[in-house]
Amino acid sequence: MEIGIDSFAAAMFNDTEDKATRNANAIAQLLERIEYADQAGLDVFGIGEHHRKEFLDSAPTMILAAAAARTKRIRLTSAVTVISAADPVRVFQNFATLDLISNGRAEIVAGRGSFIEAYPLFGYKLEDYDALFAEKLNLLLTIRDNEVVTWSGRFRAPLRNQAIYPRPVQPSMPVWLGVGGTPQSFVRAGTLGLPLMVAIIGGETHRFRPLIDLYREAGAKAGHAPDRLKVGLHSIGYVGNTTREATNDFYPGYAEVFTKIGRERGWPPVTRTQYDAQTGPTGALLIGSPQEVAEKILRHSEALGGVSRVTFQMDQAALPQEKLLKSIELIGNQLIPLIRQH
Amino acid sequence: MEIGIDSFAAAMFNDTEDKATRNANAIAQLLERIEYADQAGLDVFGIGEHHRKEFLDSAPTMILAAAAARTKRIRLTSAVTVISAADPVRVFQNFATLDLISNGRAEIVAGRGSFIEAYPLFGYKLEDYDALFAEKLNLLLTIRDNEVVTWSGRFRAPLRNQAIYPRPVQPSMPVWLGVGGTPQSFVRAGTLGLPLMVAIIGGETHRFRPLIDLYREAGAKAGHAPDRLKVGLHSIGYVGNTTREATNDFYPGYAEVFTKIGRERGWPPVTRTQYDAQTGPTGALLIGSPQEVAEKILRHSEALGGVSRVTFQMDQAALPQEKLLKSIELIGNQLIPLIRQH
Repeated sequence: MEIGIDSFAAAMFNDTEDKATRNANAIAQLLERIEYADQAGLDVFGIGEHHRKEFLDSAPTMILAAAAARTKRIRLTSAVTVISAADPVRVFQNFATLDLISNGRAEIVAGRGSFIEAYPLFGYKLEDYDALFAEKLNLLLTIRDNEVVTWSGRFRAPLRNQAIYPRPVQPSMPVWLGVGGTPQSFVRAGTLGLPLMVAIIGGETHRFRPLIDLYREAGAKAGHAPDRLKVGLHSIGYVGNTTREATNDFYPGYAEVFTKIGRERGWPPVTRTQYDAQTGPTGALLIGSPQEVAEKILRHSEALGGVSRVTFQMDQAALPQEKLLKSIELIGNQLIPLIRQH
Repeated sequence: MEIGIDSFAAAMFNDTEDKATRNANAIAQLLERIEYADQAGLDVFGIGEHHRKEFLDSAPTMILAAAAARTKRIRLTSAVTVISAADPVRVFQNFATLDLISNGRAEIVAGRGSFIEAYPLFGYKLEDYDALFAEKLNLLLTIRDNEVVTWSGRFRAPLRNQAIYPRPVQPSMPVWLGVGGTPQSFVRAGTLGLPLMVAIIGGETHRFRPLIDLYREAGAKAGHAPDRLKVGLHSIGYVGNTTREATNDFYPGYAEVFTKIGRERGWPPVTRTQYDAQTGPTGALLIGSPQEVAEKILRHSEALGGVSRVTFQMDQAALPQEKLLKSIELIGNQLIPLIRQH
């Protein structure tokens, strides 16, 4: 099982420097965490894509390119690329270049995004939400699999016998499907034989089993070998020396951020009782001691029929850099060995 | 006067490794040259944009982001961004992210491109060549100058009170106009009060004086202060220990590449006589000893009424990496001091 971290490159709002310096520092600290994760032996680091003030990741491949120049082994991925609102030609060019810079460590997680700002910003209609994703994904895979492409669709100018450069180092750049809770998305990933990255950021993880079964059944029906049908898990997580320390450290920032997002989406404010339930044995939040979180990951993996990759999203709770670095170190030196010896 | 280097990230074709490894090596060597230029005290490094097999720079900001992560002082620019075929929102997001990664060292040179592959690849018509450039440049500058934008045009979905993030470190990200020999382009740059980057890759440099005068006159007429009307020069160049060594080293690769490009554009094959004329005192090629090239740059600057930036394009002639590094070292340690003491 691969273990990694995902970040949305949160902007900084809480200190006294001017805005530009703050945000340059936020990026410098994020790059330091990626370097640290590489050195601590983590397998993968992902950067999200958002087009709003709270995040600095509207151009995630730029951050990944900078990270590629400072790391040696860790795989670098989007988490997710909002492919629906992007031009797959540019997306492929960015990731192929990342693959050259990183010498074969680039991956794409393509998704529809959980926020919707990208649609009006790039001139798309939310009513085309599903058609956009299907068409753009199809073009991305076509470009991945063919140097010279002839293609036409509704949402992008046609390509007639046109070549897309550069070509990546990897013979076939990994493209995962990043999904939330929509059953059709699980079926689509299975039918296409694409690895599946499931975001489970609340509730109980084992409840996703029926959706994962849908994925595996669709994959089998379409004739894809079981080893192609990999499942990854993106969850909010944070590892501390003890479970008590980790849960207490993480709560204040978590409550603030998710109460704020909840206000936009009509969720009730976060409560500590609810948080404690989700940090419990079957809850989605991967927060605790290395031992406890390792056991939880293995429990989730068993409940879902086997998980190939788990990524922690830990930097939305505005914890100080030294706490985040310590958490990465604990994941590399303690949690990963516990998972591997299992 | 600032001195720098521009590269088009030439793909490698002449060795025995497989294609992907070759191209990853080409990028690794390019990043090494940028690091070296930073350490040698050069002021700026630029990456071009091309969408063809011979070059690896279809996503130039990715290469610049990797370079930003490995350098401390050198400014990082496009050379040029083919803005006509791009979405200015994505372009700005990429460069603003570069500015955060580099802590305020990003610049954009916006141009129409000297090759035309980008137009059909992104669904644009060559007949809109000029209208595309004017509109996209206008949107780029609007986004640069305003966090929240309301805008509409012919070639891109409208923006209605929409914010573009992240914002850069620099209060106003430098946007230069990259031009060839079209008089209207010089007038446009002057009228807009944008710094001008002129590509002079052949002939005699002083012959551009009337066009540069057009730029300065248009700028004065539009009310821009003379110090805003900066002129930069992008030329093919290479510095060696002696003029004889530099010109002989550079010729074979130069002849091959420009004979090949000439075939597409209907130019006659390159000859040594012609090359020798252009490496002479008034020719455009900045090839020779540090002393000779420094004198030539000062001569060109005087002939053009003052030049603020000169960039050398040196890596298209397929010279080995050690020769290019040596050239960068000579530029930093010998040529720049000669220019500065003038």
